[in-house]
Amino acid sequence: MYINVFKCMKINTFQEILQKKSIDFALFYNSDSRVNANLQYFCGYKGIGALVVPKNKPSFLLAPEMELQRAKKSFKNTYSMNKKKFFESVSEKLKEKGIKSKNIAIDKNNFTLNSYRAFKKQFKKAKTQDIGLKCIRLREIKTNEEIQLLKKSCQYADKILQKTIKNFNSFKTESEVAAFLEYETKKIGLELSFPPIVASGSNGSMPHYEPSNIKIKKGFCVIDFGVKYKGYCSDITRTIYVGKPSQKERETYNLLLKIQKETILLAQKNKKCSELYDYTVQSLGKYKNYFTHGLGHGVGVEIHEMPNLTLMSKDKIQNNMVFTIEPGVYFPKRFGIRIEDTVLFKNKSIPLTTTSKDLLII
Amino acid sequence: MYINVFKCMKINTFQEILQKKSIDFALFYNSDSRVNANLQYFCGYKGIGALVVPKNKPSFLLAPEMELQRAKKSFKNTYSMNKKKFFESVSEKLKEKGIKSKNIAIDKNNFTLNSYRAFKKQFKKAKTQDIGLKCIRLREIKTNEEIQLLKKSCQYADKILQKTIKNFNSFKTESEVAAFLEYETKKIGLELSFPPIVASGSNGSMPHYEPSNIKIKKGFCVIDFGVKYKGYCSDITRTIYVGKPSQKERETYNLLLKIQKETILLAQKNKKCSELYDYTVQSLGKYKNYFTHGLGHGVGVEIHEMPNLTLMSKDKIQNNMVFTIEPGVYFPKRFGIRIEDTVLFKNKSIPLTTTSKDLLII
Repeated sequence: MYINVFKCMKINTFQEILQKKSIDFALFYNSDSRVNANLQYFCGYKGIGALVVPKNKPSFLLAPEMELQRAKKSFKNTYSMNKKKFFESVSEKLKEKGIKSKNIAIDKNNFTLNSYRAFKKQFKKAKTQDIGLKCIRLREIKTNEEIQLLKKSCQYADKILQKTIKNFNSFKTESEVAAFLEYETKKIGLELSFPPIVASGSNGSMPHYEPSNIKIKKGFCVIDFGVKYKGYCSDITRTIYVGKPSQKERETYNLLLKIQKETILLAQKNKKCSELYDYTVQSLGKYKNYFTHGLGHGVGVEIHEMPNLTLMSKDKIQNNMVFTIEPGVYFPKRFGIRIEDTVLFKNKSIPLTTTSKDLLII
Repeated sequence: MYINVFKCMKINTFQEILQKKSIDFALFYNSDSRVNANLQYFCGYKGIGALVVPKNKPSFLLAPEMELQRAKKSFKNTYSMNKKKFFESVSEKLKEKGIKSKNIAIDKNNFTLNSYRAFKKQFKKAKTQDIGLKCIRLREIKTNEEIQLLKKSCQYADKILQKTIKNFNSFKTESEVAAFLEYETKKIGLELSFPPIVASGSNGSMPHYEPSNIKIKKGFCVIDFGVKYKGYCSDITRTIYVGKPSQKERETYNLLLKIQKETILLAQKNKKCSELYDYTVQSLGKYKNYFTHGLGHGVGVEIHEMPNLTLMSKDKIQNNMVFTIEPGVYFPKRFGIRIEDTVLFKNKSIPLTTTSKDLLII
């Protein structure tokens, strides 16, 4: 549905990579209901199908007959698979178009062993190269058009989260909060970027807790949420307090908030992501062992992209990266706190999510 | 969250298969946010992790530190990966437990080329066998416990769909209908089995149309929906009519309904699924080219399981199979009609979804 100029721009850059590597074409496929992010990235289509990006000809998509009309809405250059097997129909269309199949680029992170066997039947003599990492790196630096979509996505996430927090007293269970976040997202035609996390009381000590049909517990409540706007994700976490926090709880929250804000400001061009992670850990002092996940991740057509903000990461901050900064502390069976923003880096850090981070007591 | 006796029962059957094939253990992994259905099936856990099912010892799960508490809630026998790489931590734990790694079963439908490379580094001398199909076939025949969960899942789907149809006049857009279906699902702590399809007017001619933020069009409106109850899916489609149908439209609807009911009754033990498909196609007469997808699919922990009810299918109906019967006709750019039930076969067809199928005019 969203044929945007930036898609074509990226395809051109990608085709230059193919030319440099003497690759005849890159092949992306999606054989089930799971979305292949690269396929979606290059042509906007999320259903079952195979996308061929030749090094110097227009890309084309093959989709099953039943998906044809829908696929064409996303990407004009689409043909029917004509009830043929996946790679058989790819091979046939390539011959028809006079495209060679000597060097083929595939995404080995999204190519299963069984699909590879079927692929090799059709392309017996072809050499394959892994192009997955190149795609990931291509997607890491956003175009201005992509940044506009990400900004808009974050604005929607902010708006829906604020409305939910405002209505918080009307919810009895965690599930109701999560359902409301989804409802507000879906009713305006957006998608979720991931199932919302609403983790109250001791449940908050599980970073990826799934909200359940239980009464909201007193204490900290972690709400982690994001939408997809025209395919682009947002990601925000706020931790609110239900009841009356103790002095110690306030202090812990405020320490984490201070560190989150400082870490955001610490980002500089060419700074190692691992340094940001390390800064957070060191600043947490005696709480550092309760911070059990990475500091953040890139955000784009997928909710988890490059760069990686972890101890082991070799990534460096660059202009036009969009990533999260999300330190958290998790005290098993007691409570958890996480504060997260989606941040654009363009000469400096620019938070795209802007909902207040002062401890909200409900 | 749902440790049920049937899970253990199935693990025993699965271990007998491993013993017969002299396989030391089966390995399932999940390295990203996508759910690995077999991993979930055997231990109830949906997050990142690796499950080892030895041929004659208890299964165990390895999960990253940050997921440990959550994973243990689903499956007690869970250990931390201790920040090690995926297959490195598997290999270490196997040594610790004295389990050999000569013959390893993996699911080649859910094993990417890159993961396989990482796996081979740790298990250089191991032979691998594909166990994917065995898992699929194991899951095809449901236990009585599973049937109870599927029944309950269908009851919820019926209830929510009926409430949505009752409120239909209050919705302006397709997105609002879809959002309501989701809201009603999530607020009671259930999940969707797939994103609901709400396709009005000409949009109904795309079988997998995604609802959008546009005013509901007059004419047929296809609503395809299902929930997950304790991990088990349901699937139902009803097509309602907004406005006043023509005589011809009524006739087309009633023809499809008659065929759907007849096809359900046609199911018999050992009958080929392809025969059911063929019956539908032949009965459609002049409309048969407008039926562009399969007749149905198995339903379980995944929304699409075995058996396959298509022309090419070699599957036969067996007791304790649960599958959909969903004929449809799609007239490009005009309209679509689909009528679908989830059906249990136990000596005869027993529809588990029971919402009225008479043409509802709104």
